[in-house]
Amino acid sequence: MDLKNKRIAIIGAGIAESTIYDLSYEMGYMLGKEGAIIITGGLGGVMEGAAKGAKEAGAITVGILPGNKAEEANPYIMIPIVTDMGQARNVILVRSAELVVSIGGSYGTLSEIALALKMWKPVIGLKTWPNIPGVNYVETTKEALAKIFELLC
Amino acid sequence: MDLKNKRIAIIGAGIAESTIYDLSYEMGYMLGKEGAIIITGGLGGVMEGAAKGAKEAGAITVGILPGNKAEEANPYIMIPIVTDMGQARNVILVRSAELVVSIGGSYGTLSEIALALKMWKPVIGLKTWPNIPGVNYVETTKEALAKIFELLC
Amino acid sequence: MDLKNKRIAIIGAGIAESTIYDLSYEMGYMLGKEGAIIITGGLGGVMEGAAKGAKEAGAITVGILPGNKAEEANPYIMIPIVTDMGQARNVILVRSAELVVSIGGSYGTLSEIALALKMWKPVIGLKTWPNIPGVNYVETTKEALAKIFELLC
Amino acid sequence: MDLKNKRIAIIGAGIAESTIYDLSYEMGYMLGKEGAIIITGGLGGVMEGAAKGAKEAGAITVGILPGNKAEEANPYIMIPIVTDMGQARNVILVRSAELVVSIGGSYGTLSEIALALKMWKPVIGLKTWPNIPGVNYVETTKEALAKIFELLC
Repeated sequence: MDLKNKRIAIIGAGIAESTIYDLSYEMGYMLGKEGAIIITGGLGGVMEGAAKGAKEAGAITVGILPGNKAEEANPYIMIPIVTDMGQARNVILVRSAELVVSIGGSYGTLSEIALALKMWKPVIGLKTWPNIPGVNYVETTKEALAKIFELLC
Repeated sequence: MDLKNKRIAIIGAGIAESTIYDLSYEMGYMLGKEGAIIITGGLGGVMEGAAKGAKEAGAITVGILPGNKAEEANPYIMIPIVTDMGQARNVILVRSAELVVSIGGSYGTLSEIALALKMWKPVIGLKTWPNIPGVNYVETTKEALAKIFELLC
Repeated sequence: MDLKNKRIAIIGAGIAESTIYDLSYEMGYMLGKEGAIIITGGLGGVMEGAAKGAKEAGAITVGILPGNKAEEANPYIMIPIVTDMGQARNVILVRSAELVVSIGGSYGTLSEIALALKMWKPVIGLKTWPNIPGVNYVETTKEALAKIFELLC
Repeated sequence: MDLKNKRIAIIGAGIAESTIYDLSYEMGYMLGKEGAIIITGGLGGVMEGAAKGAKEAGAITVGILPGNKAEEANPYIMIPIVTDMGQARNVILVRSAELVVSIGGSYGTLSEIALALKMWKPVIGLKTWPNIPGVNYVETTKEALAKIFELLC
C-alpha cells in the first residue's frame, strides 16, 4: 500500500518561522516519497516548505493561487492553478484534496480546517489550531504519516 | 447615528434549534429597525431567522446562495444572489459585509468567522464557537447591538 | 402585469461612449420604473449608466463587483456584492438574473452573453455583439422593454 | 525550443461528434509529445479527447471540474481540481493557461474564448466559433501547433 497519486493538501500560513517551515518541508518530503500529489495554496511559508519538500522527493506539486498571476507561485510549484479568487481559493484547495494536513496556522488556515471538516474530509493537525472537534491531532510528521496511511489506505 | 444602509452579515448553521432561531430573528429585527441591510447565506436556520426578522422590520435582505437556483432562498430573502459556488459563497458573504454577527454555529460558520477575521472585519459572537482570538463575544442581542454601534458608528 | 422585483441584469463594457452610456441609462430608468431590481457589474460605463437610470427611477441597484472593495462600486449602486473573484463574478451576475440585457460590448460582455445562453437565460441584445444565435436583438430601448415584458410576464 | 511545462488549455463542448473528438485527441497528443501540461474542463467530448491524447503522449493532464466530485473527471485526467463552482470554473481554466486552443464549441466554449481574449491570452481556433476578432483561426492541428510555437516560444 502506498499513497501513489493520492491528493493531499498541506495548509498553513504564508509566513512561517523556521521550525514550522522545516516541519512543512519534512511533511511534504515524506508524502512526496510515497507518491502523493501535494496541493498547497502556492505561496510562501508552510505552502513553500511543503512544496519544496515534495518537489525534492520527486512529487508533483500543485499550487492553488489566490491571485491572478502564475508567477506568484513559489519556485517549487510545478502546476500553478491561477484562480484570481482570493480566499475563495481555500475552498477549491480543500475540495480538491482527499485529506488535509494543517501545520501551524493563521485565520486562513482555520477557515480551511473548518471547510475541510464541513466537507467531511479527514484533517490531520500538527502544531495547529487546538481543540477543534474532528481534527486528528498528532505531534510529529511520523505520527502524521502513520495516521494518513490509516485514513487513506 | 444609525446603521442606515450598513451591510451586516448574520451567519450561522442551516439547521437551528428554536432558541438559536429566535435569537437570529431578534438580531435581524433589531438591526433591520436601524436601517441595516442584512446579508445571510440565504438558506434555513439562522439564515432564515435573521432574514425573517429583518424583513419584518422593513429592511432589505440579501441571500448569497450556494446553489444554482434563486428558488432555494428562504421566503424572507428579497435579493437572492445565486452563486452556484458551494462553500465559496461564504467568502463572498463575508467580504460583502462591513461586520459579521455569528450566532450558534457549525463548521461552515467557523469557516466564515475565520475568513472575516482574515479580512480584518469585526466579528460579533453570540452563543457561537468559543475562544477564537479576535471575536467580540457578547451574551445578548442587546449587547450585540451596542457593540455594533460602537464598532460601526 | 409589471416587472416588480424581477431581477434584470444590464451588462456591457466598463468604458462606454456617450451614446451607449445614454442607452444604458435609459434602459435602467425604464426597467427601474417598472419595479425591476437592476443588477450590474457595479463599475463604470454601461454598468454605471444602467445603475444611475435605475436609481433615479427609484429602483434597487445591485453591483456584483470583481474586486475586493465595496468602494469600487459606482455611486449609484445601493447593494455592492464584493466577490474578489475577477471575471468569475460575471458568472454570478448572470446566474442571479432572470433576464440579461446586453448593451454595446467588450470581450467581458461576450463572455456574459455566452454564459447566459449556456444557462438558458433570455438575452436581449441592443447595439451589442452581432450574430449570436439565441440572442433577441432589438433596435431601441422601447423595443427591448416590450420584448422583456413578453419574455418575463 | 519546445513546449516543456507550458500550460495549454484545450477547450470545447462536453459532447462532441467523432471528427471533433478525434481532432481534440490529435491536438492533445501533439502538445503532450512536446512536453506541454494539458488543462481542460475535465469532462467529456473535447475535454476527454484532448486529455486522452495528452495522457497517451505521456503528458500531465489537469481537469478543472465544475462539480464537487473528483470522480466526475474523465479517466484521462491525472490531476482533478474540484472547484464546485459550475461555469465559474471556466474562468480558472482560462486564467491558469498560457494559451487556449478552442475546438468545436458550445456557448460554454464561447464564454471561454471571450474570457481568454479579455485576459489577453492567445487563442487558437480550430473548427470553432467563427468571426471573433482576436482569435487565431487555423484549419488543421499541424497549423495549430506551428502557431502555438510561434506564439509561445
